[in-house]
Amino acid sequence: MSSDRLIYLPLGGAGEIGMNAYVYGYGPENEERLILVDLGVTFSDMDTSPGVDLIFPDLTWLIENKDRLEAVFITHGHEDHVGAVGHFWEKLGVPVYARAFTAALARHKMTDRGLSEQDVHTVSAWPETTKAGPFNVGFLPVSHSIPESAALVIDTPEGRVIHSGDFKLDENPVVGEPFDPDLWAEVSKDGVKALICDSTNVFSMTPGRSESSVGPEIEKLIVDAPYMVAATTFASNVARVKTLAEAGERAGRSICLMGRAMRRMIEAAIQTGVLNSFPKVVSPEDARAIPRENLMLIVTGSQGERRAATAQLARGKYNGITMKEGDTFLFSSKTIPGNERGVIRIMNQFSEMGVDIVDDAGGLYHVSGHANRPDLETLQDIVKPQMVIPNHGEHRHLRAHAKLSQERGRASIVAVNGTMVDLSGDDPVVCGFVETGRTYLDGAVKIGALDGIVRDRIRMALNGHLVVTVILDEDDEPLGEAWCEIKGLPEQGRSFAPLLDVLEEDLTQFLGRASEKTLSNDDKLEEELRRIARNTCNDEIGKKPEVTVIVSRMS
Amino acid sequence: MSSDRLIYLPLGGAGEIGMNAYVYGYGPENEERLILVDLGVTFSDMDTSPGVDLIFPDLTWLIENKDRLEAVFITHGHEDHVGAVGHFWEKLGVPVYARAFTAALARHKMTDRGLSEQDVHTVSAWPETTKAGPFNVGFLPVSHSIPESAALVIDTPEGRVIHSGDFKLDENPVVGEPFDPDLWAEVSKDGVKALICDSTNVFSMTPGRSESSVGPEIEKLIVDAPYMVAATTFASNVARVKTLAEAGERAGRSICLMGRAMRRMIEAAIQTGVLNSFPKVVSPEDARAIPRENLMLIVTGSQGERRAATAQLARGKYNGITMKEGDTFLFSSKTIPGNERGVIRIMNQFSEMGVDIVDDAGGLYHVSGHANRPDLETLQDIVKPQMVIPNHGEHRHLRAHAKLSQERGRASIVAVNGTMVDLSGDDPVVCGFVETGRTYLDGAVKIGALDGIVRDRIRMALNGHLVVTVILDEDDEPLGEAWCEIKGLPEQGRSFAPLLDVLEEDLTQFLGRASEKTLSNDDKLEEELRRIARNTCNDEIGKKPEVTVIVSRMS
Repeated sequence: MSSDRLIYLPLGGAGEIGMNAYVYGYGPENEERLILVDLGVTFSDMDTSPGVDLIFPDLTWLIENKDRLEAVFITHGHEDHVGAVGHFWEKLGVPVYARAFTAALARHKMTDRGLSEQDVHTVSAWPETTKAGPFNVGFLPVSHSIPESAALVIDTPEGRVIHSGDFKLDENPVVGEPFDPDLWAEVSKDGVKALICDSTNVFSMTPGRSESSVGPEIEKLIVDAPYMVAATTFASNVARVKTLAEAGERAGRSICLMGRAMRRMIEAAIQTGVLNSFPKVVSPEDARAIPRENLMLIVTGSQGERRAATAQLARGKYNGITMKEGDTFLFSSKTIPGNERGVIRIMNQFSEMGVDIVDDAGGLYHVSGHANRPDLETLQDIVKPQMVIPNHGEHRHLRAHAKLSQERGRASIVAVNGTMVDLSGDDPVVCGFVETGRTYLDGAVKIGALDGIVRDRIRMALNGHLVVTVILDEDDEPLGEAWCEIKGLPEQGRSFAPLLDVLEEDLTQFLGRASEKTLSNDDKLEEELRRIARNTCNDEIGKKPEVTVIVSRMS
Repeated sequence: MSSDRLIYLPLGGAGEIGMNAYVYGYGPENEERLILVDLGVTFSDMDTSPGVDLIFPDLTWLIENKDRLEAVFITHGHEDHVGAVGHFWEKLGVPVYARAFTAALARHKMTDRGLSEQDVHTVSAWPETTKAGPFNVGFLPVSHSIPESAALVIDTPEGRVIHSGDFKLDENPVVGEPFDPDLWAEVSKDGVKALICDSTNVFSMTPGRSESSVGPEIEKLIVDAPYMVAATTFASNVARVKTLAEAGERAGRSICLMGRAMRRMIEAAIQTGVLNSFPKVVSPEDARAIPRENLMLIVTGSQGERRAATAQLARGKYNGITMKEGDTFLFSSKTIPGNERGVIRIMNQFSEMGVDIVDDAGGLYHVSGHANRPDLETLQDIVKPQMVIPNHGEHRHLRAHAKLSQERGRASIVAVNGTMVDLSGDDPVVCGFVETGRTYLDGAVKIGALDGIVRDRIRMALNGHLVVTVILDEDDEPLGEAWCEIKGLPEQGRSFAPLLDVLEEDLTQFLGRASEKTLSNDDKLEEELRRIARNTCNDEIGKKPEVTVIVSRMS
């Protein structure tokens, strides 16, 4: 028994915001029985991952140890917590547990991949618990920007651990359970070994505001709007969607939900009972017949996603509806860092149409779903954990959160992805490192972030691509001239002759003077052709492209 | 005389923030004599312009009409106002006028391109004026985030026009002339026909703060810092660099400037007399010997530029100096939209080193260089222009600024790049459109943004690139099999066979069954090979790549 230990191992989400995946284990060293908390995705960008469809945590370690894995628990239904469930379930092969609304979304993830819904199990909130090997896990309700978010109460032979999940302290969250400080105090009263805690808003210095504070402001805005109003927010923010719809309804407008995710999410919320009242909605077809001043659209695409309803409205039309001069468009959302350019592009497109844009700049129409610094302090005061392990944050967030915790007299540590932490003693102790990283979903294929595939794409984007073809006969003599094709390169450079002509001349000249030894050796020949081609390009266009050399031998 | 008119034509900077270039003209229709105000650049990004070195306004119209052009006037030395001078001077061939500090920077732009410094003429501030065809142009000092910024007083036969340039209303700007409301009132007292005015901060609702307000806060921060302090800001913000250096000096620290731009800018400021006192600086070599708690670095790279000093310090070392646990790094700057990811990456790298990061979040250590909405109103009240033409802004800024002006009883209009506006009458009237756009500097070559070159690069980045080679003999019969090469694509897909093998088999099979007609027709053969290759890729890897087909004929 004395050799058993309790470990915590983030595989995603610690050192970044996104693709959460946290392992807990208990048992003898390297034989711990494991559970996984959350299995999320993150999104690609042109700078680092062009053409990639989705990004997963690298789960190689967990898959290698899947015989030790008991179950997956999902805290809530955001993509960065549930998005990878369907992509990895076959490799993990253990039950997935979640509360009803989250489970409904997780089941979509399974059926989207042709898997059975039945491996997703719906559980009730605390005090119900689920046994998973040496663990007993309960879902403790907490407020966030999606219904039925839960912290996990993880009872272990070493004591109780609380995994906060994403949360805020909202005692009036519009939809779902309010944060209940008494319940949290009750759960914590016999001592909490460790609080693993959301760090997203550790740099926000004022207490977070309640979801209920935005409704009245939104209603004022809608009442004052002369023509059509459209508003966007995350579809999963059911409370906000409800707030928007009710404000519109009170202002005498018909409500139309646009974008598949928006309709799907509200349906799931109604079916699972988290939403028991919602204004009557009209279809986009019916909406077209309604006078603009009596209509309100609630649409997807708050982050500027190119195919979502907001971007399509900004480009001209969506579901037959067009925004016009004097209409109002509300971003009831915060732009996630990295998405600014896309959102600003849309704002300018609306501006060109004469649409008035209202965003979060004044702080009236959006509140965050995460606990600010004073709220993190409040939670620590309620839970009184022996140690605080910050998660759900970039390195700077984790570090600031650990510092904050230590200043309040609690043991803490910065544990980024791959850091195995022993929670058994009085202080958290790093007890190992596991190789982690990112796995890309690229079309239908999972590739490693460091496989070189995406690196080659980035290089082609920066440098262009030149293809050199050479044909040699049976005696290694060139058959005709070198042939070049360019993609992503200017057709003409300093000499004002076509770049292809200059290249082919230089390369053909080289072939004429190359030794038999060079011509007979593919590697050497390719290397020389590449070197000459890059130099010629550099002279002509001031750029050294990526070069592919194809040597064909007639033998 | 009655057919003469006064026109305004933005070629860059109206409908975007960056690459400013504004034409004014006076004379008979289509024979107006012209001046150009500012000639700036903007910067590329991976999303829209990967691999591009610099972005210029498309000056085709101006170059075609260069016989009508009298001169170029540069308001101030920021890259988005002066950066393209060296790249276009030969095509325009007219004198360039600027105040001393700006002229010093413009001369660097000329000599960087091997051009003569002598075509850049230094002029003094108002009341000195320069005659250029029908115009008399004076440089009216105004405060901004670089020394010697000027508005232009453009006297025309139709009356006085004021082109604000970039500005803020700072009566204590630390370096350079304070904003002088009396002088502006004096210049405006006989009536101003049009104010062409900076729109950058039209959405900032509180009055702008003075540069002098940040010094005391920065000094407190440095006094409290236990070890080394490094701070970054735009090198061109000479006032801020001075504030940082003086705060460091008062806190008992030696000052070391790092990054070529930082040293170059301070040198130019001293040489041209805009900076007559600056703390003694130590070289990076000497800095290494100074105890960390007595040292302050002021470094380039506030926008996360990969090769600048900040990014290099974040990666480990710059000029032999390394940041360490407990050091402080201050971003005395605002992150420009689109640069967030790069800046955040650096913050996390510093966090991993244990460096404490301080940024602009609290509003203490940075103020903007542009006029906020109340300041725009104040300027209108001083100048009392007949009309206000917003410039230096995206469409949403221009629109809000025009609306604001109209609400204050002034004629206004949204005129984006390419819109020719007749200022002769009581109201601004659109009198034509000129084709505009962006010109990319790509290595050594200027290419059009719509030439398709960069589009091809983006497509390769998103989709990867497949090269198919086929050799046909004199009878149009395939010689051997089809040959494929991939770049930026996974090597294996759904069938678990190498992608290249599957492709080559499918393509070779097609060649075997292709008709003589197809085989003898290059276009048709390429089209078919491309189609098959894309379909095979889609089946195997769920992605349709860019395809280059090379058909070689032994004839």
